[in-house]
Amino acid sequence: MTDAFSAALLSANEAFYDAFDTADLDAMSAIWASNHAVVCLHPGALPIFGREAVLRSWVEILSAPQRPAIECVDAQAIAFHQSGMVICREVLPGGSLAATNVFVREGGVWRIVHHQAGPLSGLR
Amino acid sequence: MTDAFSAALLSANEAFYDAFDTADLDAMSAIWASNHAVVCLHPGALPIFGREAVLRSWVEILSAPQRPAIECVDAQAIAFHQSGMVICREVLPGGSLAATNVFVREGGVWRIVHHQAGPLSGLR
Repeated sequence: MTDAFSAALLSANEAFYDAFDTADLDAMSAIWASNHAVVCLHPGALPIFGREAVLRSWVEILSAPQRPAIECVDAQAIAFHQSGMVICREVLPGGSLAATNVFVREGGVWRIVHHQAGPLSGLR
Repeated sequence: MTDAFSAALLSANEAFYDAFDTADLDAMSAIWASNHAVVCLHPGALPIFGREAVLRSWVEILSAPQRPAIECVDAQAIAFHQSGMVICREVLPGGSLAATNVFVREGGVWRIVHHQAGPLSGLR
């Protein structure tokens, strides 16, 4: 796939982490797909299926008073036809997580359909 | 997407876990995509990029004398256009992992392009 595809995926991925980092619920809602099934695998937790339940989980996370700062590093995009994914590392005060973010194109815009983050051992 | 798409995805996912469970390196090699970039996120480890490096990691895992038995449960398929994913739980003797497996169609066959597994808390 083209560099333009990868750049667009990385930009959508950045929008996701910006929404997380600034606790912007409207932006978080906008970045998640509306016309596709969505799933979210928060660290250590069972999968959450469906847009409504996934967004509820983000309301809870982004409303927490002790919400940690988050930085996305080492992002690598892989684009397919009308979907793609970004593999990256999430740097939090307590350590790093490895993350997979899967995107689809909806109305010409890349939106997220799946997020999984899990702990990295021995890397801080 | 159709039920047939989902069934084919679940069947490809099963082939992946069968290859894992029987330590069948030929089957593991056949299930990973050849014409797409591939990534693998083993639990706690940094991402491994590229078919050769990913398959090397599986040789190591499947050759280990203390390789654990693995069972895939609660598999849910989500199909897009020429790609799709399966979210499932991997049950091992020591506990459960949450897993994401992303597939693409290559020559009419679903092959895996990405695997991430990470620990589940409090679920055994």
